Amino acid sequence: MSAYSERSRQELLTEQETIRREFEDLKSRGLSLNMARGKPGKAQLDLVSDIFNVFQKAEDFVSDGIDCRNYGELSGLPAAKRLFADILGCRPEQVFVGGNASLQLMYDTIAKAYTHGLLHSPRPWCKEETIKWLCPAPGYDRHFKVTETFGCELITIPMTDEGPDMDAVEKAIADPAVKGMWNVPKYSNPDGVIYSEETVRRLASMKPAAPDFVLMWDNAYCIHEFEGDFVEFPDILSECAKYGNADMPYEFASTSKITLPGAGVGCMATSEANLDYLSKLIGVQIISYDKVNQQRHVLYLHNKADTLALMRRHAAVLGPKFRAVTDALDREIAPLGIAQWRHPKGGYFVSLNAMPGTAKRTLELCREAGVTMTGAGATFPYGKDPQDSNIRIAPSLPPVEELEQAIAVLCTCLKLSALEKLLA
Amino acid sequence: MSAYSERSRQELLTEQETIRREFEDLKSRGLSLNMARGKPGKAQLDLVSDIFNVFQKAEDFVSDGIDCRNYGELSGLPAAKRLFADILGCRPEQVFVGGNASLQLMYDTIAKAYTHGLLHSPRPWCKEETIKWLCPAPGYDRHFKVTETFGCELITIPMTDEGPDMDAVEKAIADPAVKGMWNVPKYSNPDGVIYSEETVRRLASMKPAAPDFVLMWDNAYCIHEFEGDFVEFPDILSECAKYGNADMPYEFASTSKITLPGAGVGCMATSEANLDYLSKLIGVQIISYDKVNQQRHVLYLHNKADTLALMRRHAAVLGPKFRAVTDALDREIAPLGIAQWRHPKGGYFVSLNAMPGTAKRTLELCREAGVTMTGAGATFPYGKDPQDSNIRIAPSLPPVEELEQAIAVLCTCLKLSALEKLLA
Repeated sequence: MSAYSERSRQELLTEQETIRREFEDLKSRGLSLNMARGKPGKAQLDLVSDIFNVFQKAEDFVSDGIDCRNYGELSGLPAAKRLFADILGCRPEQVFVGGNASLQLMYDTIAKAYTHGLLHSPRPWCKEETIKWLCPAPGYDRHFKVTETFGCELITIPMTDEGPDMDAVEKAIADPAVKGMWNVPKYSNPDGVIYSEETVRRLASMKPAAPDFVLMWDNAYCIHEFEGDFVEFPDILSECAKYGNADMPYEFASTSKITLPGAGVGCMATSEANLDYLSKLIGVQIISYDKVNQQRHVLYLHNKADTLALMRRHAAVLGPKFRAVTDALDREIAPLGIAQWRHPKGGYFVSLNAMPGTAKRTLELCREAGVTMTGAGATFPYGKDPQDSNIRIAPSLPPVEELEQAIAVLCTCLKLSALEKLLA
Repeated sequence: MSAYSERSRQELLTEQETIRREFEDLKSRGLSLNMARGKPGKAQLDLVSDIFNVFQKAEDFVSDGIDCRNYGELSGLPAAKRLFADILGCRPEQVFVGGNASLQLMYDTIAKAYTHGLLHSPRPWCKEETIKWLCPAPGYDRHFKVTETFGCELITIPMTDEGPDMDAVEKAIADPAVKGMWNVPKYSNPDGVIYSEETVRRLASMKPAAPDFVLMWDNAYCIHEFEGDFVEFPDILSECAKYGNADMPYEFASTSKITLPGAGVGCMATSEANLDYLSKLIGVQIISYDKVNQQRHVLYLHNKADTLALMRRHAAVLGPKFRAVTDALDREIAPLGIAQWRHPKGGYFVSLNAMPGTAKRTLELCREAGVTMTGAGATFPYGKDPQDSNIRIAPSLPPVEELEQAIAVLCTCLKLSALEKLLA
């Protein structure tokens, strides 16, 4: 098997005929498979069934003297703060425990900046002429959408093997209209890159022109290794404080991919000054979050060590799925030289860069053959991948046997779209 | 016992001496009692303990084919929509089931109007010069705060025995800057008034100058009778539709005072056109709400009939508490002619109008004697009661024996502040 680039036109035409037949055969199977979103699979949901049995006696509803069933404690149960602080490596006083979605807390932070301004804002962002926002890309479409919905001008920052291109970031933040930056620092979505120590240091020590610059730190995959041991990662709050930037970072995490997606607990960790300021604004929108679910998680997860043990059980389910994806790509696609991908050890995605100009067409073919993928371009600001190259693969939802079919379809479609391009 | 107004100065001085001694005696007991907020008491929380045992087998997590443990279904489980539609008398397609707090859904509605505009808004409200908002008062402080936080100019609409003064409302809505109105239509907070049919008809048929006028309809106490039978109440959505105002009302309800405060389920009911519009904006802030808790409620409450049966059990706890309050007032205060109050049959409050100019002082005295009450003025826009008269009594939290002590303190403080005023 040689790279397509080394083959003659005639060889490519022959190959196209073969692959076209393969594709038609796959299409005729009437598949309906989904690798679109980072949804845990049923086996993972079943892993945590015991979480529904934690309330055994009346005292189980009482935490640090607080009846978790009644109103109150806007910033969450102290025990839930301790649990997240343990996992994230920050202090409990820096933690705000919310509802079932960390995305909602991220949105609220930006929304409050827009309607009221943040702690160091000269005015609400809705009163500013222009707000610009740094988006390491490929990145998470839902992040980009949050800042887009508030009219921010999204600036693409290229991703490298060490995290975002820090030269580009340091240049961009000299503009006072640049108010913040998205980050998924560990197992970035979708690249699965862990920001290097140097990248974290450069981010923590930035001196942005905007006094209210927001370092959004979505630590969604903080303990989400599916291969190998837990990887230690610096606490961004103390890193930033070290450089006089205590109020710059807003960290987020949730148990959506630890316990249950959509029925877990989300949190925000930031400076106490930021929490004081934001809590006053959040206190207008809600009396308190679901502390029964917080307590359920405290009683079920206990602490970081026990949570890591649970994550190893998730890894046992997820690891084979990711290997099915990368093995197929290594076997089917690597020799052809038509795409590149990483081999992440955690997170929820495999990020693949197809031959420029073929990502959309590849996913169109996948759809025809019954395989739903994240839309092409979704990993870039405004949903527009300038290279039309990046494809996000989310292998978590389907069982392995279905996944193997889905990835076979993807490989065939990658070949077909590359051949179409080369022969055009 | 004669009215204070009929007594001589000397008689009042003697009375003051007696009451002052009573007050000092109460103070010396070192009480710590709370009638500040509409928090259910522990006996009510214990009533619903079985809600934690509804998940018995794997199939219990599946509702209409949806695994409630995974992401998805932004607008909520169909079964949860059917439950709320049954309770509210609207159609399931008009229901959006959210998280643990209807207040959050109300806030989100106003926040979206501010940042993006609503379905019929010419522009986002943050781009308007002035936004005015109608606040029937006495009313709910958290409502007023939501519109205050977005810079609305709050206009007080007097409450009557039939609901808000509709002449005042109809006059106010001729101003296109008036964008909406708060309502707690059944057992209004704090008066416990049920809007009359005529009031509902006049509200539903309004022709506000603002094309995006919002009728906020917080049906917080829709099935919350603590005395007598369930009282039928018109469905505001079909009422408004009848008059060509289908997109004007936004109704809210929750199970906070049916199952658990802060761990229940909140919902919004409005036109399908409004839901289509809002869902696109809400979809940016959250993937989906906690459907496990929605399913827990579906399996526990079943339907309106069973939910009403549960409400009768709450009534058995709450009824005696409200009677303890009104009995004490009828006995201790009525003969003195220094305050008026209603005898509500549902909701969570007794609203008392003390002698003008004495509410603040009364609550200051209560605090001295160890009884925490809702702050004076809280029931009016900007926390300012122009008469310094209204006091909101929330008898739900303390057990009856504590409540009797608390209300004795309140009666003593009402007398003392009235005497101070009369003798000043």
